[in-house]
Amino acid sequence: MPSTDLVSGVFAASLTPMTPAGAPDHTMAVGHCRWLLENGCDGLAPLGTTGEANSQSLADRMALIEAIAAAGLPANRVVVGTGGCALGDTVALTRCAIDAGYPNALVLPPFYYKGVSDDGLFAYYAALIERIGDPQFRLYLYHFPQMSAVPLSPALIGRLRDAFGDVVAGLKDSSGDWANTKHLIDAFPGFRVFSGSEQFLADNVAAGGVGCISASVNVTAPLAARVLRADPADRAQLQQELTAIRTALQGFPMIPALKRILEWHTGNPGWRNVLPPLLALSEAEATELRRKIADFPLFRDEIALGAATASR
Amino acid sequence: MPSTDLVSGVFAASLTPMTPAGAPDHTMAVGHCRWLLENGCDGLAPLGTTGEANSQSLADRMALIEAIAAAGLPANRVVVGTGGCALGDTVALTRCAIDAGYPNALVLPPFYYKGVSDDGLFAYYAALIERIGDPQFRLYLYHFPQMSAVPLSPALIGRLRDAFGDVVAGLKDSSGDWANTKHLIDAFPGFRVFSGSEQFLADNVAAGGVGCISASVNVTAPLAARVLRADPADRAQLQQELTAIRTALQGFPMIPALKRILEWHTGNPGWRNVLPPLLALSEAEATELRRKIADFPLFRDEIALGAATASR
Repeated sequence: MPSTDLVSGVFAASLTPMTPAGAPDHTMAVGHCRWLLENGCDGLAPLGTTGEANSQSLADRMALIEAIAAAGLPANRVVVGTGGCALGDTVALTRCAIDAGYPNALVLPPFYYKGVSDDGLFAYYAALIERIGDPQFRLYLYHFPQMSAVPLSPALIGRLRDAFGDVVAGLKDSSGDWANTKHLIDAFPGFRVFSGSEQFLADNVAAGGVGCISASVNVTAPLAARVLRADPADRAQLQQELTAIRTALQGFPMIPALKRILEWHTGNPGWRNVLPPLLALSEAEATELRRKIADFPLFRDEIALGAATASR
Repeated sequence: MPSTDLVSGVFAASLTPMTPAGAPDHTMAVGHCRWLLENGCDGLAPLGTTGEANSQSLADRMALIEAIAAAGLPANRVVVGTGGCALGDTVALTRCAIDAGYPNALVLPPFYYKGVSDDGLFAYYAALIERIGDPQFRLYLYHFPQMSAVPLSPALIGRLRDAFGDVVAGLKDSSGDWANTKHLIDAFPGFRVFSGSEQFLADNVAAGGVGCISASVNVTAPLAARVLRADPADRAQLQQELTAIRTALQGFPMIPALKRILEWHTGNPGWRNVLPPLLALSEAEATELRRKIADFPLFRDEIALGAATASR
């Protein structure tokens, strides 16, 4: 038995359905995870930015990890987001994920203090690896400078790889800067680089990356899977279609928009709930969203249900 | 008995001494709080940015609140930092502070998501007030856009004051933008506005603000108190001296620099410990810091001890 399960392919940064009281709805969450795995996803990254992880209490995050494990979602198809501002919380969440059977963790840098040094970030990640102290653990760095405001430089990544080898297994690059992604793939052989958007999926795998972990894959999974598995002759056309959908969705607050589409997909209005400071789409935004996605055959069923909901 | 205790004057955003293992050192913390209250501070704001609150686990933050309460620090001299990214954690910390006898809380906006709407921030603070549901609770907003990257607009503050009155009691303005502080004092009568630096102390109280809550007050408290209590004829000169010290300190990573000065003040090298991603000052930085503060009579004792430590 290998000590870890490598992850690759099309991953959804999976949404967290919430109860009206603002707690994760485990039944809906597990149902959505299963739907994703059965409809094109190679895997899931729960409790990331899209999963509203940092808006959830520590206890809620741990309970969701355990609910996913109890549902039997396989270890080689899950990368759990475990990064917080406090090393102690990040250690506790990572330990919870490993104990639940998920050794692959996606870990933000500590994001409260800004302008911190690479030495300070190295100390943080080194302390995490040492305190976890488990040979199974695989760390995926999470580079999302627009949200964390704490970038992870290639120099820092190199130092971590030099010190800890393949324990520092990979990275999700949500910068939207393809040149940065390409540089990381080229600079660090064996380092497993995911793009943070399926808009770069074809480029990523052609360049030697391992796939994408993306918010919008919560609704584009079937098409993203076709891009990944397409013959070279067909891939460019399919990628163009996938990129057009991603681009359309980027005109809306991403998480509330994805949740609204899932309401249309499932008929369950519970999908509308988000945690503050996020807000559900306004009716005007929802109408505009329905109009925008009507251009795409992928959403035929959702458009029909969305129209039915709107006419109630 | 009044339902709350109003706070005003010179407040230190108090540092959290740490054990080598990275937990708050309660004995040192209480000792430092007592020293501040006996040496010029009207009050303390533990567990803010300076207190490395967001680098501490939830459990460690709660234990520190309880240690401060157990030491008998008075309610009208304490504003506890309780803001995190997750509403659930912020509610738990605020409840912990109120239960410990501290109804005044300094609360950051949720700071993971960037570019959020005023409607979303209003929803967050409104939910906090409603979930706390305690008439004693007094909310001090914490505006620190350079660190949180989530500004609190005057429009939002006005909406919160309109909805919740004096429960939304005041604000710490750490923007460094005096025009913003002045505008908030003028725009919201009865709103208790603290400057985030003692460099604005004289201006703040002259304009009708209630004082300062500042990192560097951890070492400047005796002089800051003299500024606050000075005759109008002497105040400008004393403020100039205080501002010069603050300006000198700003040339260094603030929290590690303050901790190094407290090591020199107390002779306790435990003061050097910080939590990642912060790092202790390098020896070169410490030497430069000692050289810089040697210009100021306030630090005569610290300079002597710093020199003795360096020559060991």
